[in-house]
Amino acid sequence: MVGGKVLNYKNIWFEGAKLCFIDQTKLPFKFSIFTSKDYRQTAAAIKEMKVRGAPAIGVAAAYGLAQAALEFNGQNLDGLVAQIKKASSVMKGARPTAVDLFNAVDEILKVMKKGRSVKECRELILSRAEALAEENLQACKKIGENGEKLIKNNSSILTHCNAGALACVDYGTALAPVRLAHSRGKKIFVFVDETRPRLQGALTAWELQNEGIPHALIVDNAAGFYMKRKEVNMCIVGADRIVVKNGYLANKIGTYEKAVLAKENGIPFYVAAPMSSFDFGAKNEIKIEERSENEILFIGGERIFAKGTRAKNPAFDITPLKYVTAVITETGVFKPREL
Amino acid sequence: MVGGKVLNYKNIWFEGAKLCFIDQTKLPFKFSIFTSKDYRQTAAAIKEMKVRGAPAIGVAAAYGLAQAALEFNGQNLDGLVAQIKKASSVMKGARPTAVDLFNAVDEILKVMKKGRSVKECRELILSRAEALAEENLQACKKIGENGEKLIKNNSSILTHCNAGALACVDYGTALAPVRLAHSRGKKIFVFVDETRPRLQGALTAWELQNEGIPHALIVDNAAGFYMKRKEVNMCIVGADRIVVKNGYLANKIGTYEKAVLAKENGIPFYVAAPMSSFDFGAKNEIKIEERSENEILFIGGERIFAKGTRAKNPAFDITPLKYVTAVITETGVFKPREL
Repeated sequence: MVGGKVLNYKNIWFEGAKLCFIDQTKLPFKFSIFTSKDYRQTAAAIKEMKVRGAPAIGVAAAYGLAQAALEFNGQNLDGLVAQIKKASSVMKGARPTAVDLFNAVDEILKVMKKGRSVKECRELILSRAEALAEENLQACKKIGENGEKLIKNNSSILTHCNAGALACVDYGTALAPVRLAHSRGKKIFVFVDETRPRLQGALTAWELQNEGIPHALIVDNAAGFYMKRKEVNMCIVGADRIVVKNGYLANKIGTYEKAVLAKENGIPFYVAAPMSSFDFGAKNEIKIEERSENEILFIGGERIFAKGTRAKNPAFDITPLKYVTAVITETGVFKPREL
Repeated sequence: MVGGKVLNYKNIWFEGAKLCFIDQTKLPFKFSIFTSKDYRQTAAAIKEMKVRGAPAIGVAAAYGLAQAALEFNGQNLDGLVAQIKKASSVMKGARPTAVDLFNAVDEILKVMKKGRSVKECRELILSRAEALAEENLQACKKIGENGEKLIKNNSSILTHCNAGALACVDYGTALAPVRLAHSRGKKIFVFVDETRPRLQGALTAWELQNEGIPHALIVDNAAGFYMKRKEVNMCIVGADRIVVKNGYLANKIGTYEKAVLAKENGIPFYVAAPMSSFDFGAKNEIKIEERSENEILFIGGERIFAKGTRAKNPAFDITPLKYVTAVITETGVFKPREL
């Protein structure tokens, strides 16, 4: 689906012991497939955001552990278990916010325990990783179905960051209902937040362009402007982590701003996420990933602010669920109090 | 004051019939003075944002009319009047939002009527232009005094766009109280919104850096994040136009978002502006300047979004005064209902 009629790709897939995915640091200028040879390369690719988006990095982490299992060439089950545990901690250290990564790694660690031989254990891990990828794909399809019903004909939809096929195995979370509404003939228009600092809006615009869905890119500052004018009818974003017990979600920096503005203007604000993005533990506010200030100070290797200027770069923010109209999941659409 | 102890410049001044100002399209990478030889060049410089900021373009427009008067080499008063009227309409067409420009042009047209000879008329225009520049300088100083009292010791202040010395003749509007608080020994920290698309945050950071005022640049998406954490104690922004009768102000795109977020988080939101930025007429919402999409799609001549991606680029937004705690002017600090 990535690329619509132009390119017929999934975002991420496994070949032998190699993990293949679209290199998102090259888009929107170059479409290229990155092939990771081992779990260390996969973890590094997650860290460097070659693969990004909560569901995609969950699936990548699971496949990364499958790579670790396939790489193990001993005969000792304890040795394999030690290898997977080591690889798990490397994976968990790659990025802190998307809970899909932690959920996926924990799932693999769980099935691993059932293996009574190296061969069986390896097979269990590999098939669980494949199943997680397939589950995400099916979840996104269902999110599309569930969310599409919420999109009225002649709607303008605001989205932030990229919660499209590039953030998942395919279809996307926030973009799945948008895709489906368009393919079913609804007339829609998408306002795409550029999403500084890393400009993931470019990925969203690229996906929409490939499918011929009408859209315009706007600076993040302009989202409120179009909401206030009621030129935006609804917002749909993804989530990196929905912490139900504490009543908030973590998502790309700027999500909180858009949610507050939507509420202030009486515009529905939807979050589209598979169950793999839910965190059912109870916790205080999570630690926010602070990334390099160079993501702000440079664009394409060129400095855009004066030498000596320092920046602060929180990559995510926390949005209380009181700002959210409903969460669109594969099992249904839930108001916050129904979660 | 521009450049603090490093550079001792005003932002804009008149020499003979030449208008000199700091070329803001070159900053923060190169400090250079642009010399405009006639009113047409001055209008073009306003349009291209070589000189920008509501008070600065008001003063530039007045000087532009002085250039038009000095350029006139006839002996006929009617000829001079026709020349000034023609130049006035060129000036008014340069940019639509900052009311200072219209107010300044109207002031010049008013004094022009008092001239009974070409010589007298020319002198009246020139001296009114000089007076407007001096008035702006004094107004900013007083805004500094009036606003400084609102800044508590150990404050973190968020500002949007550049409402500094570079937006005025000197000192600035929003930055004048910040400068004064720092020079009086208050411990302050400034969060500088980068202000996409044109990144005027770079100008603000440059001014603060020159004066050694602690600050960090943030993406516009992160302002709400720091407000929610109460790491921002107050916001101060400038204004391009305060329309009192209709209860709103126009300012750089993104101002509305920050104002809503400040209110939501119980953080005082101040607007600092001289009386020249007030529009005492009654009008419906003003037409918002839509600038070239290339301001978004390119940075420093480099394309940052895919070919074919289209953007919408409103340069200003409208903030209802209900989101504003008070307006800091040269005559005092006024709550919206006191205006």
